[in-house]
Amino acid sequence: MPEIHAARRERAQARVAALDADAALITHLPNVLYLTGLASSNAALLIPAAGPNVLATDFRYTLAAERDAPDLELLTERQLVPAFGKLAEERGYRRLLFEAQEMTVATHEKLAAAAAGVELAPFGEEIEELRTVKDDAELDLLAAACAISSRALEELLPEIGPGITERQLATVLERRMVDLGAEAPAFETIVASGPNGAIPHHVPGDRPLQSGDLVTIDFGARYGGYNADMTRTVSIGEPAQWQRDTYELVKLAQQAGLAAARPGAASADVDAAARDLIEAAGHGAHFKHGLGHGVGLEVHEAPMLAASSPGRLAARVPVTIEPGVYLPGRGGVRIEDVIVTGGEATSGPPGHGVLLTTTTRELLAL
Amino acid sequence: MPEIHAARRERAQARVAALDADAALITHLPNVLYLTGLASSNAALLIPAAGPNVLATDFRYTLAAERDAPDLELLTERQLVPAFGKLAEERGYRRLLFEAQEMTVATHEKLAAAAAGVELAPFGEEIEELRTVKDDAELDLLAAACAISSRALEELLPEIGPGITERQLATVLERRMVDLGAEAPAFETIVASGPNGAIPHHVPGDRPLQSGDLVTIDFGARYGGYNADMTRTVSIGEPAQWQRDTYELVKLAQQAGLAAARPGAASADVDAAARDLIEAAGHGAHFKHGLGHGVGLEVHEAPMLAASSPGRLAARVPVTIEPGVYLPGRGGVRIEDVIVTGGEATSGPPGHGVLLTTTTRELLAL
Repeated sequence: MPEIHAARRERAQARVAALDADAALITHLPNVLYLTGLASSNAALLIPAAGPNVLATDFRYTLAAERDAPDLELLTERQLVPAFGKLAEERGYRRLLFEAQEMTVATHEKLAAAAAGVELAPFGEEIEELRTVKDDAELDLLAAACAISSRALEELLPEIGPGITERQLATVLERRMVDLGAEAPAFETIVASGPNGAIPHHVPGDRPLQSGDLVTIDFGARYGGYNADMTRTVSIGEPAQWQRDTYELVKLAQQAGLAAARPGAASADVDAAARDLIEAAGHGAHFKHGLGHGVGLEVHEAPMLAASSPGRLAARVPVTIEPGVYLPGRGGVRIEDVIVTGGEATSGPPGHGVLLTTTTRELLAL
Repeated sequence: MPEIHAARRERAQARVAALDADAALITHLPNVLYLTGLASSNAALLIPAAGPNVLATDFRYTLAAERDAPDLELLTERQLVPAFGKLAEERGYRRLLFEAQEMTVATHEKLAAAAAGVELAPFGEEIEELRTVKDDAELDLLAAACAISSRALEELLPEIGPGITERQLATVLERRMVDLGAEAPAFETIVASGPNGAIPHHVPGDRPLQSGDLVTIDFGARYGGYNADMTRTVSIGEPAQWQRDTYELVKLAQQAGLAAARPGAASADVDAAARDLIEAAGHGAHFKHGLGHGVGLEVHEAPMLAASSPGRLAARVPVTIEPGVYLPGRGGVRIEDVIVTGGEATSGPPGHGVLLTTTTRELLAL
């Protein structure tokens, strides 16, 4: 693995040089993990435009850093950012880039105090941008996370029915994922039943599922650091006509979104492909969130797929496609899958995406 | 519960007025939860020096906000901080406080752009400071979290022995906590066996426990939003003399720390009470982290107990006391409990702390 991380750092280094800076200070932890292989709650990386990278962490992670990033210069410090500020000053840097989307105002002040005379400038989300296109090792881990997630839900379908509470269902689903090899749930599972389904981010409670409910289950496994994210909505008992209609609308919108998620497509157009159908059916006001987002080392990462999103999709970019319709007081439907945008290097047909989450998208009556 | 939150907001409002500002913008989510009762991944609170507070969240949490904080003015927005900046500008604010320890440089820029003409100044960790002293409802929840944690470990002791891997042990312990009523683990459980015990924040791996190991288990349950945090080190088989000696030293240091954690004590003195013993035994270089930290809505919160910590402990402040000795290549010992500093209002004798984590601190040979 050290070679993979070295190759990623080379790409990052090229961006630093292109931005006419002496170095970039990486403090967003998923970016540090991506570039070094070190998973730590306290680490930072200095990427000079030329010359060796320097990884800093505190003594708790020194042994892990020596093991996971043996090819990097290592700095063991308690206060990482001021230490790098001092180093920048000692090296006579003129211009140091920092991650303004991550660094707090308080930490920035400490950096500025330590790096007297060094110009500080935002790096932008350059590393997040690099992270959008996944390599083979990443796609394998993400595919495994998605396979565990799909299988866990499928195995639990017989247990979903009247009586089990939202929280119980969330717990057994999370356990099943760990039993199937997940490191942990990627995020706190959402189970939203009946009227709670109208709350997109409902926290599972003591409500027992009841006949006549639609139940939205939003969950995912983490595997090798990579996060799955999928949603299914099921019916408890035979669905009423309005439930069927709502479901079919969301399903159609999702299919349109999946089909639109291709290399070269504008992110806003992918969102529109699904949203237009929901708006045309008169439910535009009931679908207020974006259509999807990238997934990888973070559950939500670039690129975002929303009406206001700039940019276009590349190949080998895993994104969620997750339209929903939420009817206050009545309930909601959301269907979410992870699709990897096509490209000759993926296993699917060129130009077509590969679905990593495979549980049926038909409305199940349980 | 709305009355509790209203009382907390009144205390916060007094701090805002004392700092000669028109309002404070609270963006650190545990602070928003503490002041409003709303658990959300996207929320912010405006506390004017006088007049009603305004809670902002996005549409995903609108229903939850109406339910959990019915007494608050509610703003539904996608971009919370710019929306509050605009409001500050419209209201003609002169000076707006913000949480510099939480707000990123990028968000601060958006706030400044929206709040043209308004002076922005750091609020400091005022709310974190208020949160250190817990009320009865908080202590009850924290005590329940600690009781679940202690009981989960005690119930699992018969399963701890040669053969079970670090990761398996971490998994069964987390499950047991959920079975006993925890919402979730408070953080990712650490199980560090044999030489891994020398890494304070070791990530559990596939290493099976072996006879001759010391095994450090650092874990806790979350209950009602409050987080337990405790550590025990056990011996697999009969401990060797160096293991016994190391354990007894850490145990003695921990007792000294627990005894020193009293209202009025300087935080640095509490740290010193334990550290001096470890240093006197020649292991100062093997105990590099602080002695402990506050626990509550966050696993690590104010006050910190370290050599460099300013301030003194108040009454009704739950803190961890967790000295350790880490011997590279050989292993380590850490013992950690949550103690609530005494005071007439707690259930213990006045001036004495109340231990919330109750599992034996004797060295167990399993």
